[in-house]
Amino acid sequence: MKPISAKTWSLGEIVELLGGEVLCDAELRVSQIASLEQAQACHISFLTGGRFLKKLEQSAAGAVIVGKDMRDASDRPRIVCNNPYAYFARVSALLNPEPAVKAGVHASAVIDPGVKIADSASIGPFVHIGADCVIGDGVVIGAGCVIGASVVIGAQCRLYPRVVIYHGCQLGERVILHSGAVIGADGFGLAHENGRWLKIPQIGRVLIGDDVEIGANTTIDRGALEDTVIEEGVKLDNQIQVAHNVRIGAHSAMAGCVGIAGSAKIGRHCTVGGAGMILGHLEIADNVQISSGTLITKSIHKPGAYTSAMPFSAHDVWLKNAAHLRHLDAMAQKIQGLEKKINELEKKSS
Amino acid sequence: MKPISAKTWSLGEIVELLGGEVLCDAELRVSQIASLEQAQACHISFLTGGRFLKKLEQSAAGAVIVGKDMRDASDRPRIVCNNPYAYFARVSALLNPEPAVKAGVHASAVIDPGVKIADSASIGPFVHIGADCVIGDGVVIGAGCVIGASVVIGAQCRLYPRVVIYHGCQLGERVILHSGAVIGADGFGLAHENGRWLKIPQIGRVLIGDDVEIGANTTIDRGALEDTVIEEGVKLDNQIQVAHNVRIGAHSAMAGCVGIAGSAKIGRHCTVGGAGMILGHLEIADNVQISSGTLITKSIHKPGAYTSAMPFSAHDVWLKNAAHLRHLDAMAQKIQGLEKKINELEKKSS
Amino acid sequence: MKPISAKTWSLGEIVELLGGEVLCDAELRVSQIASLEQAQACHISFLTGGRFLKKLEQSAAGAVIVGKDMRDASDRPRIVCNNPYAYFARVSALLNPEPAVKAGVHASAVIDPGVKIADSASIGPFVHIGADCVIGDGVVIGAGCVIGASVVIGAQCRLYPRVVIYHGCQLGERVILHSGAVIGADGFGLAHENGRWLKIPQIGRVLIGDDVEIGANTTIDRGALEDTVIEEGVKLDNQIQVAHNVRIGAHSAMAGCVGIAGSAKIGRHCTVGGAGMILGHLEIADNVQISSGTLITKSIHKPGAYTSAMPFSAHDVWLKNAAHLRHLDAMAQKIQGLEKKINELEKKSS
Repeated sequence: MKPISAKTWSLGEIVELLGGEVLCDAELRVSQIASLEQAQACHISFLTGGRFLKKLEQSAAGAVIVGKDMRDASDRPRIVCNNPYAYFARVSALLNPEPAVKAGVHASAVIDPGVKIADSASIGPFVHIGADCVIGDGVVIGAGCVIGASVVIGAQCRLYPRVVIYHGCQLGERVILHSGAVIGADGFGLAHENGRWLKIPQIGRVLIGDDVEIGANTTIDRGALEDTVIEEGVKLDNQIQVAHNVRIGAHSAMAGCVGIAGSAKIGRHCTVGGAGMILGHLEIADNVQISSGTLITKSIHKPGAYTSAMPFSAHDVWLKNAAHLRHLDAMAQKIQGLEKKINELEKKSS
Repeated sequence: MKPISAKTWSLGEIVELLGGEVLCDAELRVSQIASLEQAQACHISFLTGGRFLKKLEQSAAGAVIVGKDMRDASDRPRIVCNNPYAYFARVSALLNPEPAVKAGVHASAVIDPGVKIADSASIGPFVHIGADCVIGDGVVIGAGCVIGASVVIGAQCRLYPRVVIYHGCQLGERVILHSGAVIGADGFGLAHENGRWLKIPQIGRVLIGDDVEIGANTTIDRGALEDTVIEEGVKLDNQIQVAHNVRIGAHSAMAGCVGIAGSAKIGRHCTVGGAGMILGHLEIADNVQISSGTLITKSIHKPGAYTSAMPFSAHDVWLKNAAHLRHLDAMAQKIQGLEKKINELEKKSS
Repeated sequence: MKPISAKTWSLGEIVELLGGEVLCDAELRVSQIASLEQAQACHISFLTGGRFLKKLEQSAAGAVIVGKDMRDASDRPRIVCNNPYAYFARVSALLNPEPAVKAGVHASAVIDPGVKIADSASIGPFVHIGADCVIGDGVVIGAGCVIGASVVIGAQCRLYPRVVIYHGCQLGERVILHSGAVIGADGFGLAHENGRWLKIPQIGRVLIGDDVEIGANTTIDRGALEDTVIEEGVKLDNQIQVAHNVRIGAHSAMAGCVGIAGSAKIGRHCTVGGAGMILGHLEIADNVQISSGTLITKSIHKPGAYTSAMPFSAHDVWLKNAAHLRHLDAMAQKIQGLEKKINELEKKSS
């Protein structure tokens, strides 16, 4: 766990900044946020539902964030708010500010001529920036990042070490890219000719909206002819593969290991669980939830939750059941045959 | 989309270089290639099948590439050829040439003694090349690549930024490696001894044939004792994992997120859809197509298409159906019991 | 295959170091290890079970490692031991020592003030190490690695080129990290508020025990509030995703493309096959084996093997069978209906 920050905050100061109501002791000072189980007297914790009341009772937390429905669930110092989980996120950001970054370009960086870098930006060691890029205010580019020619990076973006952005791609403001992410590599575009694969030049770009976060080692390919587009507020976890010409609608979120095949169009406010896969050229409506491990093979036009996962069982039990999966059609035909015979027997006996 | 290139081509010039026949206006000049929907008067587009005829009719494209069967499908300026999709790939390459790369070794690169680098090769900033490597004519090595000792890179290979090649691996000619690819890391070789795992040295190499392309963040492990081999013309998309001792036959292509376990032998001209998985020590014949999301658990000796994907449904429907998957064997036995009873009833009633 | 090492070993010298018993010719010298199929007279090979006896007979290997039960399976020079596969691993390590690494910090590396680096450590070109790190004895950090502030790296760790470790993470001793691995990126922690995602600061760390090996492009996220923990002796293959707050118990091993969702707790001595997935907040007991391609959706409290893979078939056969998966519940109800009718018929006929 992070060392306790030097600066402490009183509950009153927190509420002044973030809203909500303090009950019991506005002067109480906290120095870090922690789960109910781990919290000590110097910590503020949070209660996200009635089923954690027992844990709250046993917690050593000095203070707690609760929802309005839990206003009287405890008599310890507390902050009452509408959305305790979101409030917790804001308190944590307050108590754990990003370390200050020194503006300027590290002496070892190699910056091509014609690049425009804001004075407030910070460019780390061993960064290479290609010709004609534009790097906005307050941008932080970590060590070893490589930015191709003509890339535009909006204000307050943060690139962790060893991100690659290919030529021509554009990032909005406040975009976060984690290490190993590769933005704008060639899409998998091939034409078949006489038993060989012919590469199709990938001349589109990747366009990324404001407030997008992209996880470690996630890859987003440039478009074949048009652009690949990640709209504002999209959150992608680690090791996600987004193929060429995909569009992901605003405020959609996808967990680790998801794959989106070429030209798929995902709606706004969608979620995809870990290792979910969406085939190419499909359209997914707004507000669709796709479960972990689910393969989407047809377009989805209605909001709702969709699943295709095969349930697991002990291996020997699985062996017995799985064998029948290869004979379901035969099984269905047997049932049909039985129905027919029974009908005949019923006729005879009636 | 890519800015329109400065240079324009007449249809006549294109046909002179790439073959085919011009109809209507050989003098018409085009500056970029585009889809039927996006194309403007200065663009050439392409028709890959009769089902796009409506789009062709509505397209503003100045010219179009069509197959011989579609020779008279339009009266606009057009190029008639055998394989319009492959022709489109070639026209796009013509209109979008790779930007010229400056030969030479960047001042910041660290090159070990004994490395042989062709004069026409281009080595970017922050590249490290280990002892005794051989770098061929026209090779481009992007910023931040790291090449282990005794690696051989054939003529005209292109390594995008931040590729790693471990010691001793070999690339043929015209190989393309995208950013984040790791070639030749240790295979996952472990011996079990007294409850602990003992590392087995991985002393094989990775050998990659001519005209192979490997996607961003794809990993290909070195062999345990013998070599891992990727034959000529193989195309691998992003985030593919190829384990030790695998052999992938010539001109096979695999989409993103595929995994090939150790010592699997894949035939020639195979395709694997996204997130397909092939278990270890299996043999897959030539001309096998494996569907997206399919797990191959046994060798495949016959060409053809193979699938194992579980169909998705709305989550509540899935819940109802999936529960039975754990009881298929019981279901099969029930059916058998019913058949027996019906046989008895039939005997009685006859 | 690796060139034959200059140094040769006699069987007697090997047994003196690694134990076991030599039969037939202790003076015989071998220079490399090889499979039964590939071995020549200068090679030592190994027999891991009776089913390979035919191969042993046909092998040109000069010597062979056999188990005690196979002591007399051949009359060629041989070493008899308890666990021939583990013995093979040890002989291979003997014959293929890691190349010596030069201690010291490469002139191009950028090391922040306050970093403590052991004299025997080797820091490669273009490495960046943040403030207050501690780098132990004999550590090797390959070219282009980036180490965040306050990271502790134990003795004899090896980081291959282009590894990233975020601030505050800790490695035990003899940890191996392959290229492209990212340790300690932010977990995927989001709170939902008014249709937007709010980032939850990830203030935990990643703690990695002794003798852990982590594959190429594998990602292990830092904890949200507490730490992500990889216990001693764990072996992770390539392209594995370990989410925040996960704990993996000692001596567990996972093959490529596995995903472990947030806060899952995996026991000791577990194995997960390629592309296995474990959902968040689950607990997996010690000594559990999860098959390749299996999705674990509930906690597992009993040791044993577990599977959920859908069997593959030829695509047209699959089409016929898979259609019924969406109607299993209807099928089960039909069977129930038939049972009822037959019971009635039986009553009537009796």
